[in-house]
Amino acid sequence: MINPDFKITIVGLGLLGGSYAMGLSKKGYKVKAIDINKDNLDYALNAGWIIEGSDDPRLVNDADIVIFCLYPDTLIKWLKTHQHELKSHAILTDVTGVKRSIISKIDEFLRDDVSFVYSHPMAGKEVSGAKYADTEIFKNANFIIIENDDKDAMKTIRELSETLEFANTTVLDAKSHDEMISFVSQLTHVIAVCLMNTSDNTHLKDYTGDSFRDLTRIAKINENLWYELFIQNKDMLIKEIEAFIKEVNHFKDVLSDDNEEEMKRLFRQSTERRKVFDKE
Amino acid sequence: MINPDFKITIVGLGLLGGSYAMGLSKKGYKVKAIDINKDNLDYALNAGWIIEGSDDPRLVNDADIVIFCLYPDTLIKWLKTHQHELKSHAILTDVTGVKRSIISKIDEFLRDDVSFVYSHPMAGKEVSGAKYADTEIFKNANFIIIENDDKDAMKTIRELSETLEFANTTVLDAKSHDEMISFVSQLTHVIAVCLMNTSDNTHLKDYTGDSFRDLTRIAKINENLWYELFIQNKDMLIKEIEAFIKEVNHFKDVLSDDNEEEMKRLFRQSTERRKVFDKE
Repeated sequence: MINPDFKITIVGLGLLGGSYAMGLSKKGYKVKAIDINKDNLDYALNAGWIIEGSDDPRLVNDADIVIFCLYPDTLIKWLKTHQHELKSHAILTDVTGVKRSIISKIDEFLRDDVSFVYSHPMAGKEVSGAKYADTEIFKNANFIIIENDDKDAMKTIRELSETLEFANTTVLDAKSHDEMISFVSQLTHVIAVCLMNTSDNTHLKDYTGDSFRDLTRIAKINENLWYELFIQNKDMLIKEIEAFIKEVNHFKDVLSDDNEEEMKRLFRQSTERRKVFDKE
Repeated sequence: MINPDFKITIVGLGLLGGSYAMGLSKKGYKVKAIDINKDNLDYALNAGWIIEGSDDPRLVNDADIVIFCLYPDTLIKWLKTHQHELKSHAILTDVTGVKRSIISKIDEFLRDDVSFVYSHPMAGKEVSGAKYADTEIFKNANFIIIENDDKDAMKTIRELSETLEFANTTVLDAKSHDEMISFVSQLTHVIAVCLMNTSDNTHLKDYTGDSFRDLTRIAKINENLWYELFIQNKDMLIKEIEAFIKEVNHFKDVLSDDNEEEMKRLFRQSTERRKVFDKE
């Protein structure tokens, strides 16, 4: 558990920020929130998740922990403009889905007397706004902490994950994180989007089963957030896309050639690998 | 409902054949089954789904309806060898996931005094064998009948779908069926298989969320059945794969060029199209 005397401010009170506020307030922490959207603030105030909320950056003045739940570019801009408002020795964290690019940009200007321990809660929903906040999304989710020299600050962010009751907490370096995310999250979103865009097959809706629905669920995508996430992880994502295209081309050749032996080998390999991912 | 006096024989008593036997016997029909696997027959006999079962082709002698639940190549071979056992005016149907190729092959030799109304129950599970039979799989499923000149026989097969309580019954010509299936089923299986085969990422299992699991569930695939299904629909499936690769390459270019406008357009398009597939 986080030190009970710590004051916490959340910057960006959307679905994730709201769920953090909900979870932390439940455990007795006094949470403030900054958002430009008054609806989000009012909702959280009414729900008792925050004790104060406004668009005023000075709400971070007394915060021991500041949690940024913002889009990548907005996070960098906010910090550049308002970091003078931070208390000395404040511990900062975020929720961003890509890491190398934001860390390298923030490293260039971040004050020396604060610690930024980057983290990535692998939790979410396909809706946005504090009114959809729900601590249930943390229950089966991974919380990833990016390795940091400040071990005390890292410990505090690990306690944040425990306080919010994430299922697992893992430490990775930024490169390993971005590599992992380019495969398990970003490539899968590219595939779903491309499948929906291959042709307008909406007239086939009466014939689709759960396989198609499952595969394309994530083709409903927040265009502003995902544009930023993809661009900021472009190098790794392009490599994954190229490897995937190579594999699909190989499959096409195998099919064209009626290559029974190789096609069955591919089926057995995908079956074996996929079994590893089955939940117990 | 099917004529209550009709005798029904199922050839191939696996998951689907077993589920047909279960559903038809529940409604009072006398069902016989032919299978080379004694376990399947014993299970169905014990469950009261069939009144007689063996590997003897003569079990079709008195059948008014014969339902073939066999792999495509096995179906053609069985019929070629044993069609002299069929009663005159028998109505035949099947469960095969591809249509043009089997229809053209069977048309070449089928007796004139029987009617084959091809159909495709879009239902299944990722397991096989009569012991997993379950009429629940029909509840939300589509039953597709391939257009046929024999309207009376078509009516009987429509009644079969109703007796088994499929959610919808649709009539399509063989080409439209195969086109539809190449997109909603076959291409999605190719994608899932290729994603699992792109690289051995089983070490990432602790980081995967439901998106990845949903997208790759169908990468666990029956190698013998799907090899036949893909080969028999090769022309259309190759076209779909090529269109998909083109779309993924386009996405890669858009990403390489930081083309914000086009990437966001693609996201909006996939989101809009996918919404059409949401269940009410």
